[in-house]
Amino acid sequence: MAFEIVKPEDIERRSMEMIASELGVRTWPEPESSIIKRCIHTSADFDYADNLVFSEDAAKIGIRAIRAGANIVTDTKMAHSGVNKSRLTSYGGNAYCFISDDSVVAEAKARGCTRATVSMERGAALNGDTIFVVGNAPTALIQLNEMIKSGRVKPALIVGVPVGFVNVVEAKELIMEAGVPFIVARGRKGGSNIAAAICNAMIYYKGEV
Amino acid sequence: MAFEIVKPEDIERRSMEMIASELGVRTWPEPESSIIKRCIHTSADFDYADNLVFSEDAAKIGIRAIRAGANIVTDTKMAHSGVNKSRLTSYGGNAYCFISDDSVVAEAKARGCTRATVSMERGAALNGDTIFVVGNAPTALIQLNEMIKSGRVKPALIVGVPVGFVNVVEAKELIMEAGVPFIVARGRKGGSNIAAAICNAMIYYKGEV
Repeated sequence: MAFEIVKPEDIERRSMEMIASELGVRTWPEPESSIIKRCIHTSADFDYADNLVFSEDAAKIGIRAIRAGANIVTDTKMAHSGVNKSRLTSYGGNAYCFISDDSVVAEAKARGCTRATVSMERGAALNGDTIFVVGNAPTALIQLNEMIKSGRVKPALIVGVPVGFVNVVEAKELIMEAGVPFIVARGRKGGSNIAAAICNAMIYYKGEV
Repeated sequence: MAFEIVKPEDIERRSMEMIASELGVRTWPEPESSIIKRCIHTSADFDYADNLVFSEDAAKIGIRAIRAGANIVTDTKMAHSGVNKSRLTSYGGNAYCFISDDSVVAEAKARGCTRATVSMERGAALNGDTIFVVGNAPTALIQLNEMIKSGRVKPALIVGVPVGFVNVVEAKELIMEAGVPFIVARGRKGGSNIAAAICNAMIYYKGEV
């Protein structure tokens, strides 16, 4: 078995080189390029070179928001777990996930809606700018769309990358028409890993925006 | 936008129906089928119908171990976060992730190896049966292989689904020759989401094994 000798601190850089090499002549402007490559890095799935859709300047808007102390609200604990919180908090923001809060669980049951729906309402009640990050639940995007329309929330950015089969494609198309900055993985693919990767790509980005 | 009306408690069942429908005539025996479908469910990536490799009875062995109180050791906090720990602990086992322990970080730095390498050594020191679950770091599989060869550990099962580019394919091939039960996603694909999905498919499985 022939292993490549790579120092621990060089693995990520070497991975990114391999991704860039396979993408070949396909390039994107920054910071979109960093986000696309990190999604491929976290999934080994080159579909993300094709399915990621950015509203105008969405990546820059997200990075500026993070640097200005925006909070991140995720729909899953896995996505929350994957976000680099020590880096995020160094900018002044925090990462939240309300999905397992007792009051969220109880309210969702009483209303017959998903916990993700209620957890987005909790996120909307936070002070300051908020980036909503959805890796699992299309109902979270549907709820965000409703709250945007009613003026209840104005997200700094929506990362809309729920994965799956039931209403996922449709919810993503909906949020791309909601009139707020978005980064969406069009189609069925996405997930908590992709959600966290997009956040971290923005958190790690070092260039001017 | 036409949304399908599905009650929250029915979303997963409906998703699994759609996955089965798209797989068409392709079927697998249980419990492998449940594991394959849950990986597709968590990624919307049908490649998992082709790339998952099970050693003989690996899924049954894993489920039996969980029901008998085996522990799960993951290489990432995201995978740990995704494992249904309340269900797991109901069988008597626990889920561990040592990757961010201060002593692991310090030892990895001193030895010039990855934190994943050291964290697998911590897992090997646990009492009782252990399922090792690797969603990120090929170095974790390489270390497990070394410890198996030297008799330092005898995993109940290895879930070997690191994702990526540097030594990932090779580490998976290595662990498939290590002489212990394994579930591996052959090739580059995998990840913490897939790692957690495989664990949960085994934890949730209700049939006889």
